[in-house]
Amino acid sequence: MAKRSAASRERFVEATEALLRERGLAGTGIQQVVARSGAPTGSLYHFFPGGKSQLAVEALRLHGARIRELLQAMFTTPGPLPEQLRALFRTAAKGFDNAGGAKGCAIGAVALDLGADDDEIRGVCQEIFDGWIDEVAPHLPWAGEAARRSFAEMIVVALEGAFVLGRARRQGEAFLTAGEWLAAAVEPSRRDR
Amino acid sequence: MAKRSAASRERFVEATEALLRERGLAGTGIQQVVARSGAPTGSLYHFFPGGKSQLAVEALRLHGARIRELLQAMFTTPGPLPEQLRALFRTAAKGFDNAGGAKGCAIGAVALDLGADDDEIRGVCQEIFDGWIDEVAPHLPWAGEAARRSFAEMIVVALEGAFVLGRARRQGEAFLTAGEWLAAAVEPSRRDR
Repeated sequence: MAKRSAASRERFVEATEALLRERGLAGTGIQQVVARSGAPTGSLYHFFPGGKSQLAVEALRLHGARIRELLQAMFTTPGPLPEQLRALFRTAAKGFDNAGGAKGCAIGAVALDLGADDDEIRGVCQEIFDGWIDEVAPHLPWAGEAARRSFAEMIVVALEGAFVLGRARRQGEAFLTAGEWLAAAVEPSRRDR
Repeated sequence: MAKRSAASRERFVEATEALLRERGLAGTGIQQVVARSGAPTGSLYHFFPGGKSQLAVEALRLHGARIRELLQAMFTTPGPLPEQLRALFRTAAKGFDNAGGAKGCAIGAVALDLGADDDEIRGVCQEIFDGWIDEVAPHLPWAGEAARRSFAEMIVVALEGAFVLGRARRQGEAFLTAGEWLAAAVEPSRRDR
């Protein structure tokens, strides 16, 4: 029984993550979360007394951790940085296209929907983006920390922007474009900064 | 009276544009549009028999045309391309911060909220992004059209991504980061592609 409950809890968070990626914050309603999860309605408020906000925060952290793992994997794969960048954006494009071009980044979709009352959720989005930058920056080749963090931020900007164009087109070519230009920006001849 | 009606129509579209920039597609309801517009409720369905979809499409086109004008202005201002890029992203950062860091790009916010039923709206988003690429590409210095369009797409990716990070932080520094890296990518020594 305890096991089953834990499974329901997880299903609610997974369903919320999927809905946030597809429809953003305003488009993700409790009823849709329940329907998508297949878990019993009654248990939702047992696990999530904070309702939608609490669900959204947990789903954002789950999604954020997944992307962070991807970033870690890509930047610890041996090889020159331009190749690592191309591989990251190729992987993102493939994942995006495999999902039918219909799933964006949960953090991005939520960030663009934030209202004045959503400051807690906004803070979680900010924290997740900063965590991605923390993850990537140490793998970058510049001596100065400011340059490393700046380029790590550019990588996050490019990923988020590629999701936006990808959703409008239902295909992920913008990821490949971004990967090529970022790779060009860090070719060894350019690292004299 | 005809004049007053035209003013109401315009107010509905402006209110929709503002709401889309703040809350995305799912977060923009007809009631909020009416409240924000200050125009009489009864006239909304007179002007917009297609309801929310029609309003959203018109608001997206309005917002898309405004950004396209900005792009045209920035890339026809005489000066080297890296400076034009820095100026574009500086202008975007300033506009973003002046709006309290609470207004994203309407096209981006809508693109990340699209459902399976929103194919008309999706097509309008795609068309607008393509229009921005059409606007920027001819001003770029590469001989090949593919390279020009690719970098124009990268500029749009970077703008959209900077709005996402900006919304999460309520401040527009990501625009400046993006402007610097794009400027670095096109410094004259790099144009040998």
